[in-house]
Amino acid sequence: MAVKAVTLQINKLCIVGAAGIVQDKTWNMDIKAGALLANINNPDDLKELNREQLHQVCDELRQYIIDVVSVYGGHFGASLGVVELSVALHYVFNTPYDQLVWDVGHQAYGHKILTGRRDNFATNRKYNGLSGFPKRSESEYDTFGVGHSSTSISAALGMAMASHYKGENDRQHVAIIGDGAMTAGLAFEAMNHAGIEKSNVLIILNDNCMSIDPNVGALKEYLTDITTSHTYNDLRDNVWKALGKLPVGKSFSRGMASKLEASLKGMVSQSSNLFEALKLRYFGPIDGHNITKLVDTLKDLKDIPGPKILHIKTVKGKGYDLAEKDQTKWHAPGLFDKVTGVIQKKKFDIPQPPKYQDVFGHTIIELAEKNKKIFGITPAMPSGSSLKFMMEKMPDRAFDVGICEQHAVTVSAGMATQGMKVFCNIYSSFMQRAYDMVIHDVAIQKLPVIFCLDRAGLVGEDGPTHHGCYDIAYMRCIPNMIVSAPMNEGELRDLMYTAQLDSNTLPFVIRYPRGEGVMPDWKTDMKEVKIGTGRKVKDGAEIAVLSFGHVGNFAASAIRDVKAEGINPAHYDMRFVKPLDEEMLHEVFGKFNKVITIEDGTVVGGFGSAILEFMNEHGYKADVKIMGIPDRLIEHGTPKQLYDEIGIDANGIAAALRAMVPVKVSVVS
Amino acid sequence: MAVKAVTLQINKLCIVGAAGIVQDKTWNMDIKAGALLANINNPDDLKELNREQLHQVCDELRQYIIDVVSVYGGHFGASLGVVELSVALHYVFNTPYDQLVWDVGHQAYGHKILTGRRDNFATNRKYNGLSGFPKRSESEYDTFGVGHSSTSISAALGMAMASHYKGENDRQHVAIIGDGAMTAGLAFEAMNHAGIEKSNVLIILNDNCMSIDPNVGALKEYLTDITTSHTYNDLRDNVWKALGKLPVGKSFSRGMASKLEASLKGMVSQSSNLFEALKLRYFGPIDGHNITKLVDTLKDLKDIPGPKILHIKTVKGKGYDLAEKDQTKWHAPGLFDKVTGVIQKKKFDIPQPPKYQDVFGHTIIELAEKNKKIFGITPAMPSGSSLKFMMEKMPDRAFDVGICEQHAVTVSAGMATQGMKVFCNIYSSFMQRAYDMVIHDVAIQKLPVIFCLDRAGLVGEDGPTHHGCYDIAYMRCIPNMIVSAPMNEGELRDLMYTAQLDSNTLPFVIRYPRGEGVMPDWKTDMKEVKIGTGRKVKDGAEIAVLSFGHVGNFAASAIRDVKAEGINPAHYDMRFVKPLDEEMLHEVFGKFNKVITIEDGTVVGGFGSAILEFMNEHGYKADVKIMGIPDRLIEHGTPKQLYDEIGIDANGIAAALRAMVPVKVSVVS
Repeated sequence: MAVKAVTLQINKLCIVGAAGIVQDKTWNMDIKAGALLANINNPDDLKELNREQLHQVCDELRQYIIDVVSVYGGHFGASLGVVELSVALHYVFNTPYDQLVWDVGHQAYGHKILTGRRDNFATNRKYNGLSGFPKRSESEYDTFGVGHSSTSISAALGMAMASHYKGENDRQHVAIIGDGAMTAGLAFEAMNHAGIEKSNVLIILNDNCMSIDPNVGALKEYLTDITTSHTYNDLRDNVWKALGKLPVGKSFSRGMASKLEASLKGMVSQSSNLFEALKLRYFGPIDGHNITKLVDTLKDLKDIPGPKILHIKTVKGKGYDLAEKDQTKWHAPGLFDKVTGVIQKKKFDIPQPPKYQDVFGHTIIELAEKNKKIFGITPAMPSGSSLKFMMEKMPDRAFDVGICEQHAVTVSAGMATQGMKVFCNIYSSFMQRAYDMVIHDVAIQKLPVIFCLDRAGLVGEDGPTHHGCYDIAYMRCIPNMIVSAPMNEGELRDLMYTAQLDSNTLPFVIRYPRGEGVMPDWKTDMKEVKIGTGRKVKDGAEIAVLSFGHVGNFAASAIRDVKAEGINPAHYDMRFVKPLDEEMLHEVFGKFNKVITIEDGTVVGGFGSAILEFMNEHGYKADVKIMGIPDRLIEHGTPKQLYDEIGIDANGIAAALRAMVPVKVSVVS
Repeated sequence: MAVKAVTLQINKLCIVGAAGIVQDKTWNMDIKAGALLANINNPDDLKELNREQLHQVCDELRQYIIDVVSVYGGHFGASLGVVELSVALHYVFNTPYDQLVWDVGHQAYGHKILTGRRDNFATNRKYNGLSGFPKRSESEYDTFGVGHSSTSISAALGMAMASHYKGENDRQHVAIIGDGAMTAGLAFEAMNHAGIEKSNVLIILNDNCMSIDPNVGALKEYLTDITTSHTYNDLRDNVWKALGKLPVGKSFSRGMASKLEASLKGMVSQSSNLFEALKLRYFGPIDGHNITKLVDTLKDLKDIPGPKILHIKTVKGKGYDLAEKDQTKWHAPGLFDKVTGVIQKKKFDIPQPPKYQDVFGHTIIELAEKNKKIFGITPAMPSGSSLKFMMEKMPDRAFDVGICEQHAVTVSAGMATQGMKVFCNIYSSFMQRAYDMVIHDVAIQKLPVIFCLDRAGLVGEDGPTHHGCYDIAYMRCIPNMIVSAPMNEGELRDLMYTAQLDSNTLPFVIRYPRGEGVMPDWKTDMKEVKIGTGRKVKDGAEIAVLSFGHVGNFAASAIRDVKAEGINPAHYDMRFVKPLDEEMLHEVFGKFNKVITIEDGTVVGGFGSAILEFMNEHGYKADVKIMGIPDRLIEHGTPKQLYDEIGIDANGIAAALRAMVPVKVSVVS
């Protein structure tokens, strides 16, 4: 049961805080775990403690998370909310033989610290450090790699079915899933299947009423109902009402009433429960911060074979007052002073460019004020996408539909059939969830839904599950699609403006990265962009750079760098990978026989490949270097570290230019 | 409210029956609708009838469907099951102002016949004829294009939200969805959202316990429970049990008991219902074949604003005895004698090649008998995929998980973590539903799940929603994937054998088309194929053809055709688009400067593009013609008609060869 060796470059890490300040820190030397926690190197050590000591372990674990995250960054509220659950699970279950699957994984810090990664924990989410999510290659206690939500029940069921087949019927498989993640269809599909299997699956519904933003949807209300016993109360009231009409004599006494009530209460948590309807035995709700109760309940459940669900109530951010009070802000606050709660912020002497997200958030309002047909849709990312501004200002036109990308796309398609102009804003890697809906419900029907693909390119610390690497390839192969990417804030606004015009009759993708653009004065007048046209950034000689999207700025920087060396590349900001600007490309390939294409997407089937397809069709034979995200997984780190690693930054592009255009040394005669 | 003009080439259609017999028929001249139906040209005509006459309309509509489908083919059981519902909906609702969204759409034949397409109905699913599914471009009564399951609630909700915003609060939006489609996560996501919206959405749950195959999952059992009142009975029993313990006197009489029972029964369909838990008002279940009851109920529901669900019980194939008794067989039986029920079958004098599906179905058993780690998974396609053979023979190792491609992939990933070799068989176009799971749960974790992508390429009569056009592009852009396609049955078996070996440690896609292969003696000895290697089919001169998958047979045929003309192409069956056989490609581009690539996938980002990427990386400058599915929607028709249309058949390839290799006319001197 030893933890797999994790090779980490951890002696001295280059820490880049949320404040953007690069600090050289010998990590973790200044943060000590509490007395008990310091001796827990794996769950076996935890199991040697007596039950009374678990309270102290929870306190120490919580404190350690606060100490480390405040200084080194990371997700915060979710892990604080499951401190007791993490301790109870590893205390009761025989991990890793018994298998824990943490849904999403933001909340698994306690689990990591208890399973041999306490002393590495400061490297969490750092380049070459621990992953922010459970990851199979990191530890045998991490049974399933996560990041996107709602996979845990399916994964645990698959493990349980394999165990059942192998005759390992003592083995337990536990999916820990939040009420937010429960709204995604995958979780429902898994429960529908789990209910008819005999395998040992325990679903722990960690109900804290939150995703990153507060949860929405009928399920959330239902969970509140069963917790506050409204359902039960309704049932009781109805029975009383019925009985009230009866000629009740003295023999139907207060005592009888009380017994009937107890019986009804039992029924509410059995017969009349959504999860019981899906043939899952339902237990709870219980207080997820009561370690004693949790341990007792899990011990009981361990002996009950088959599929079952335990509903626990927790508070996101539990134990850190500010985080309990503003759970969205403290989901991943960046670095902060743990005593004062002051979150570090960058300070600048000159105006900085805004985030693309905020440009989207403000621009959609500007457009919606003029075009009454505009709607906004986000699947559970109102803060992340900045659609929250419109949701506040125009609540009848902007909607958070919960963690359900599939529904987000198809409900947008339904709206579009009625002439609405829907901006459906979904992160690039999450859009993978709705791929069929994009094809089947939007593109095949030629509905002009506007897809704003946020977090395109490498996202940084969240790593390979969240990088938006594939969307150029997976979108441009669909007929009827328009696929665009702005090089800066002004182009984002122009593309948004263009997409909502009645003259556009096709689905329209606008992809842009996480974070800041390049235009402090971003509030440009919006103008129509002719669909399928690029922009010549600069003329040049010998070689042309064709860029798609924000990485065009890296190219521009590289071009400035090599100018002093006598290299003078032309630069074209293509803006559209579909349709391509064929006129511009004929110009490019008519003039240049050396071309570099650059994109922040995979080099397999992406923008560069689109250029090759054009060349092939038209018989151009130029030398082309395709620069983009290589065909392998890119791990986590800051975006800067990652783009440097793969050579898609100014230095990398400059090097490529030098390699393709040997500099002529001018000899002074 | 006129039906949009549908331009159809319908005077004389070339009908290709399931029997493969090409018949010239002046369609529909021999089939007359009944007296009432013959005068229903749109729903307004239907509304002029009195309620008594609706019985006759239902009889005539059912008969007309039987008459036409038996002679012209199409889906059968589903539409027979909703004859009464189709009539009732158009009788009660003000279509198309009120909007009907038919889920999947196999069941919408009655709807089509009642909405102006009676006299075209024999062209259903024929080349240039009516679509087998509702389709927006075909009629304004078809509010949303369908084909894949479970989109209807999202679409109807989107329409309803738009109507609500526009103040059209009298407008109704009805989603008609089967209990099979209800198991897909998208339907749950939509209900979770619908429950908190104020819009007018009526969900009609058409509960017939069937998908194409019998339904599976906990929801199905639950629906049976509430229909047979088990839930209610359990509740009642529990109350009686509780009351039984009470000192009941004579004042708690039989009459009281009866009133309490009535009260409880009401509660079962209110408080204690899965749909009510999602804040949808639940009505039913009612008999979906009782036209009077349906009309009355729908009239009542029309006046109830907000989201609600009506549960109706129907029988798939209703009114055609054989279809009621074997619902899977009669889902889409092909042509049949409506009197005797004898289904037409092809007869051949010589042995024919088997379907790829059956080769898969028998081969997985052969492999599983030797390798105890093999599992089989299908999302609701046991018959279509032929996994049913293994499900019958090895019920603990082969599973139908219901209509839920997402879960099918992630549960396979969970099994793979336990060392199982899972063949997860999903149709190419349905795999779009599970795209994120392929990336996030399988590829990123390098789990060696085997994906058998059935129905790759053009599927024929189901049309654009079902064509498997995009998988080469959307799979090969994912890191860690192996993507292969067999040219024949023997290669399918070899690839399946190779994929399940312990030496394969990566996710492995095997894509193959619907229907027959080319090897009557298909039961070859299986052998390992070195991953990433192709096969030289024949040497040649001047030009090389690189094919991927079954279309290689079209290429082989074309090569035979042009031989007589003095063209002698080489032919390489590449087998893998990822990883590419680089050694073979160096040979090809070392020898040839004219190359044709051929695939039954989109030309955007597909196999041809992979070849261009290879050439670009290695500096080859050959002339390449990429042949594949063009970047536009391909409509429905027989596969032969469609491949002919796009030029991806022997004739098209031969023409391309002739165009690239001008034939030298040898002059006799």
